[in-house]
Amino acid sequence: MDQKIIPDIVVGRLPLYLRTLQRMSNGGQSVTSSQELGERLGISAAQIRKDLSQFGEFGKQGTGYSVDYLLEQLKKILKVDRVWDMAVVGAGDIGSAVARYQGFADRGFRVAMLFDNDPEKIGSRVGSFIVQDKATMVDTIRAAGIVVAMIAVPGLQAQGVVDELIEAGVKAILNYAPVNLNVPNGVYIQNTDPVTHLQRMTYYLD
Amino acid sequence: MDQKIIPDIVVGRLPLYLRTLQRMSNGGQSVTSSQELGERLGISAAQIRKDLSQFGEFGKQGTGYSVDYLLEQLKKILKVDRVWDMAVVGAGDIGSAVARYQGFADRGFRVAMLFDNDPEKIGSRVGSFIVQDKATMVDTIRAAGIVVAMIAVPGLQAQGVVDELIEAGVKAILNYAPVNLNVPNGVYIQNTDPVTHLQRMTYYLD
Repeated sequence: MDQKIIPDIVVGRLPLYLRTLQRMSNGGQSVTSSQELGERLGISAAQIRKDLSQFGEFGKQGTGYSVDYLLEQLKKILKVDRVWDMAVVGAGDIGSAVARYQGFADRGFRVAMLFDNDPEKIGSRVGSFIVQDKATMVDTIRAAGIVVAMIAVPGLQAQGVVDELIEAGVKAILNYAPVNLNVPNGVYIQNTDPVTHLQRMTYYLD
Repeated sequence: MDQKIIPDIVVGRLPLYLRTLQRMSNGGQSVTSSQELGERLGISAAQIRKDLSQFGEFGKQGTGYSVDYLLEQLKKILKVDRVWDMAVVGAGDIGSAVARYQGFADRGFRVAMLFDNDPEKIGSRVGSFIVQDKATMVDTIRAAGIVVAMIAVPGLQAQGVVDELIEAGVKAILNYAPVNLNVPNGVYIQNTDPVTHLQRMTYYLD
């Protein structure tokens, strides 16, 4: 069956819906509406209905959405109804913070290994991890079948690390280095750069 | 003069254009095109031309854009032709990483102070900062005239911290806690949550 092509901008909103639904579910809420989701997220109700309708029929007109049903469906669509092991590359401040981050639990991800190329860091403990030698990274990631990675290395090293991760079979990379990186078709990269978020806000300041 | 209302989604792309132009400029490149910017960023050339045209006339048909001129204009539009002092709240792993992060320099921001409410952390050194007592936060931020803050505190504390920051005069908040937070009109918040980035990619994986 052909998969319908959904615009990436729509895909990018689904994790926000999922996060909000998870909070509603944790709070014991059983039903919600596109209006309520919209108010929580600053997105129009019409946009939310249109986004969700691309993936199926999740609610009935007038009765809203079942929080837990929509939550489970979005987890399936985003493929986080499973747990993805991740490799973290770079055991500096950001990489170490990521390796210890408690926010992955129950959201579909688990840090499985941490690499660095600094002899002083290799073998040291960061949270529950022993920093592994980056020279072994390609073989170790490939052997473990890991396809998701986060990189937190200096900008000048980032493209080289990305190329090695792709060689190891990685398909999805979250990049903390403040540079744009090239990946081939079939490999996905997302950049997380605090400065771009900040600049988006200073636009509105006096 | 009335300011034209620009969609926030357009504003959100300007920092990406700025980052790419800065790299071109650092590499000695003097001219670029919407095609080249588009290829670097995975955005269509037509979209880039349309986005930029909302702010003025930055290039001539057929000759492209002057990298340095467009860079300076985007800095002015995003108001990062100055340096914004920032307060960081939370001296845990992420807050400490942010306080030591080298990626703010020359991009319009500077960490100026770091707060925590943990007696064991208050008074300790993180990078070039002494962790200050969060009990003094509102007065200290107000006295310094700081309007930009980053919060990296546990999810359950985040809304309370946001409310205090607003009381102190903060207008722009970058939130590292994995929760949605409420702010009044005239205050801007951006969430940076690694899981939403990861989930946007696992959608595409098998």
